[in-house]
Amino acid sequence: MQKADGMFYAPKGKPNPVCKEGEFQIAAIGLDHGHIYGMCNGMVEGGAELKWVYDPDPAKVKQFCQAFPKVQAASSEDEILNDLSVRLIASARIPSERCSLGLKVMDHGKHYFADKPPLTTLNQLAEARRKAEDSGMKYAVYYAERLHSECAVYAGQLIEEGTIGRVVQVIGLGPHRMNPDTRPPWFFKKKKYGGIICDIGSHQIEQFLSFAGAKDAKILHSKVANYNHPQYPELEDFGDASLVADNGATAYFRVDWFTPDGLGAWGDGRTFILGTQGYIELRKYLDVSRDNEGDQVYLVDHEGEKRFSVCGKVGFPYFGKLILDCLGGTEKAMTQEHTFKAAELAIKAQMQAKRIE
Amino acid sequence: MQKADGMFYAPKGKPNPVCKEGEFQIAAIGLDHGHIYGMCNGMVEGGAELKWVYDPDPAKVKQFCQAFPKVQAASSEDEILNDLSVRLIASARIPSERCSLGLKVMDHGKHYFADKPPLTTLNQLAEARRKAEDSGMKYAVYYAERLHSECAVYAGQLIEEGTIGRVVQVIGLGPHRMNPDTRPPWFFKKKKYGGIICDIGSHQIEQFLSFAGAKDAKILHSKVANYNHPQYPELEDFGDASLVADNGATAYFRVDWFTPDGLGAWGDGRTFILGTQGYIELRKYLDVSRDNEGDQVYLVDHEGEKRFSVCGKVGFPYFGKLILDCLGGTEKAMTQEHTFKAAELAIKAQMQAKRIE
Repeated sequence: MQKADGMFYAPKGKPNPVCKEGEFQIAAIGLDHGHIYGMCNGMVEGGAELKWVYDPDPAKVKQFCQAFPKVQAASSEDEILNDLSVRLIASARIPSERCSLGLKVMDHGKHYFADKPPLTTLNQLAEARRKAEDSGMKYAVYYAERLHSECAVYAGQLIEEGTIGRVVQVIGLGPHRMNPDTRPPWFFKKKKYGGIICDIGSHQIEQFLSFAGAKDAKILHSKVANYNHPQYPELEDFGDASLVADNGATAYFRVDWFTPDGLGAWGDGRTFILGTQGYIELRKYLDVSRDNEGDQVYLVDHEGEKRFSVCGKVGFPYFGKLILDCLGGTEKAMTQEHTFKAAELAIKAQMQAKRIE
Repeated sequence: MQKADGMFYAPKGKPNPVCKEGEFQIAAIGLDHGHIYGMCNGMVEGGAELKWVYDPDPAKVKQFCQAFPKVQAASSEDEILNDLSVRLIASARIPSERCSLGLKVMDHGKHYFADKPPLTTLNQLAEARRKAEDSGMKYAVYYAERLHSECAVYAGQLIEEGTIGRVVQVIGLGPHRMNPDTRPPWFFKKKKYGGIICDIGSHQIEQFLSFAGAKDAKILHSKVANYNHPQYPELEDFGDASLVADNGATAYFRVDWFTPDGLGAWGDGRTFILGTQGYIELRKYLDVSRDNEGDQVYLVDHEGEKRFSVCGKVGFPYFGKLILDCLGGTEKAMTQEHTFKAAELAIKAQMQAKRIE
C-alpha cells in the first residue's frame, strides 16, 4: 500500500465563510503539486467560490474536478486570466515556474496564491516584489506547515498571550517521506524544485519569523547533503540552517526526506519554541507511538506541564483573512513583506548552503 | 520547595562489580559540583571501593560521608595522593581547576576521573594530553548525559545493531534548570565554568561522536547569548552549535538554562538520531506530560513506531569497563583520544561562538 507522503496533504476544517456566496471567485492553474487541494479547500472553507481549473494534463484536471465538483475545467490559462469575475488564482505549478505565472496573474489585475516555495531565485523575487508594488495585487503563499496546522495556529495564540515570555529560539524538524516512485521528474531536478532549503525549508523560516515576531533575519549557517540517494544526483535529502532575527531570537531547522516507512504519517514534524518563561512543543502530524492524531501542543510554563489536543478545535483563520485582505486592501492574513521575506531567506540559505559530501 | 536542577543528579543502577572487593580503591577530591555523587556511585556499583574523600569545605565532606558511609575524610589532598593503594581519583572541582588536579593525580601514578567539563582551555588540554601520554594514566571524564543515561546506552546498542542504518545526524537539546539561589559564585564566572558550550555542550559533542561513530569533527557554527539574566553578566543562558564529523554525519545541539519551574525534571533533555533507515528519539529525564519516568526510547524504522521504557533495564556499563580498563590497560569504556576530542571540540565551539546581543 502506498504510504502517505504529504503530496496530497490537505487538512479539512469547518466552513467559515467571511463573504457572501459568489463575492470572491477564484481559480486554480497548475496542479503539479497536490498542495493545490489544500490551498483550494482552505479558500473554499473561507468563503471563496472555486470557479475554474486549468492544467495542461487532463488527468490532473479530471482528478481535481472530482474533489471539487462545482469547478469548471477551462480550456486554457487565458480563459481564466481574462475572466474579470475571478479575483484570485491559486497555483501549485512546478516551483521554478510559479513566479512567471504570478506576474501574469497580477498583470491581469488578480491576486496570486502560490504554493510554497513561491519562487526559486532572487531574480524572480525582485520581479515579484516589483509587480506586487506596481499592480497593488497580492502574491500570497501557502506556507502550510503553519497556516494549515491547527497546533501551529494555537501556538501563535499562546505566544501572543505571552504564555512563554519572550521567544528566544525556534527549532523546526521537517522530515518528509519521499516515495520516489510517485514523484514527477521535476522533483529530482534542482533548478525546478529549487533545493531542499528553498523548498521545504521555506515553511520553517516563515514559522520562525512568525513565532519570534521578527521582521527580518540573517542566515548564520546552512548546509545540504545527499546522503542516501546517489541514483538522484540532484536531489538533496538533507538540509539545515541557523538564523538570527532582527530581534535577537534565533532559529535552527532541519528538513529531510528520510521518513521511514513505519511511521504512521508522512513526517514527524516538530516545532520547539523556547521562551524566557516556558516552552512549547508541537507534534504536528502525529504523536509518535502515542497518538495517531496530530495537532498535539505541549506547553511547559512555571505552573506545570500541559498538553492540548487541538485537532478540529482551532481552525485555519488564514484563508478567510486572506479573502478579506483581498477584498479590503488590508494585510491581516500576512503582510506582503513577510511573505516575500520568508522566501528570500529560504533562497539565501539555499544559495549559501555548504555541501556535505 | 526546591525544584530539581540536576546539580545532584545521580542515577542509581544495580551493583555489578567487575573486580574483587578492595581490588580497585578510589577517592574523591573536590566536591564543588554535585555530579561527584553520580560519579562515585557509578564507580562503587562497578566494584570500586571508595576509600577517601577530601574537600576544603567540611560541610561538603560531611554531606558526602552521609551518602557514602564507608568513606574516610582525609585531612588533605596529599594524604590521598600519597596513598599507594588508591588507583583512581574522581573530582568535581570547579571546572577551571579540574585539569591542574588531574596533572597532579597522574603524576602520583593514579588514574583521574573528572566531571565534565574536564578542562576549560586548549592549554590545559595540551598539558593533559601530554601528561596522559607520559604517565600512562587515564584522564577519564563523566559525560553523564550518555554514560549515566540508560536510554542513551540503549540507543548506542540499537545503532550498533544497524537498526536505523547509517547515522546521518544527531540533534541534542540540553535544557537545564538554573535555580540561581542554589548556585555557588563560580557558576556565574565564565573563566571558572568555561562558558555554556564548554560546560554543558561537552556532553552533546561526546554523544554526537559516539552515536555517529566518528573520530573527529569540525565546528561549522556556534553561538552563545545571555537573553534573560542581565544580573549575571558572565552567565550564558543559551548556546548552540553545528558540527560535521569526519564521516560526514552532522550535529546540531542547543543547551540552555531556561527549564521552567513547572517541569517535573531538571530538564527536558532530548536526543534525535536520524539514520538512513529510521530514527531514534530519546526523552531522557521525563516524557513531558506523558510519563514522569525518563529513559523513554522512541524508535521508528521501516516496520513501525516503537517505544521502549528502559529505566532499570539497561544499566550503566561504563563504570565497570572503566575499572577494567584501569586494571588491564585497555580502552573499552572510552578511548583517551575520544575523551579529549569531545572536550577539545567543546572548547573550540565555545571559543568560536558568535555572541548574540
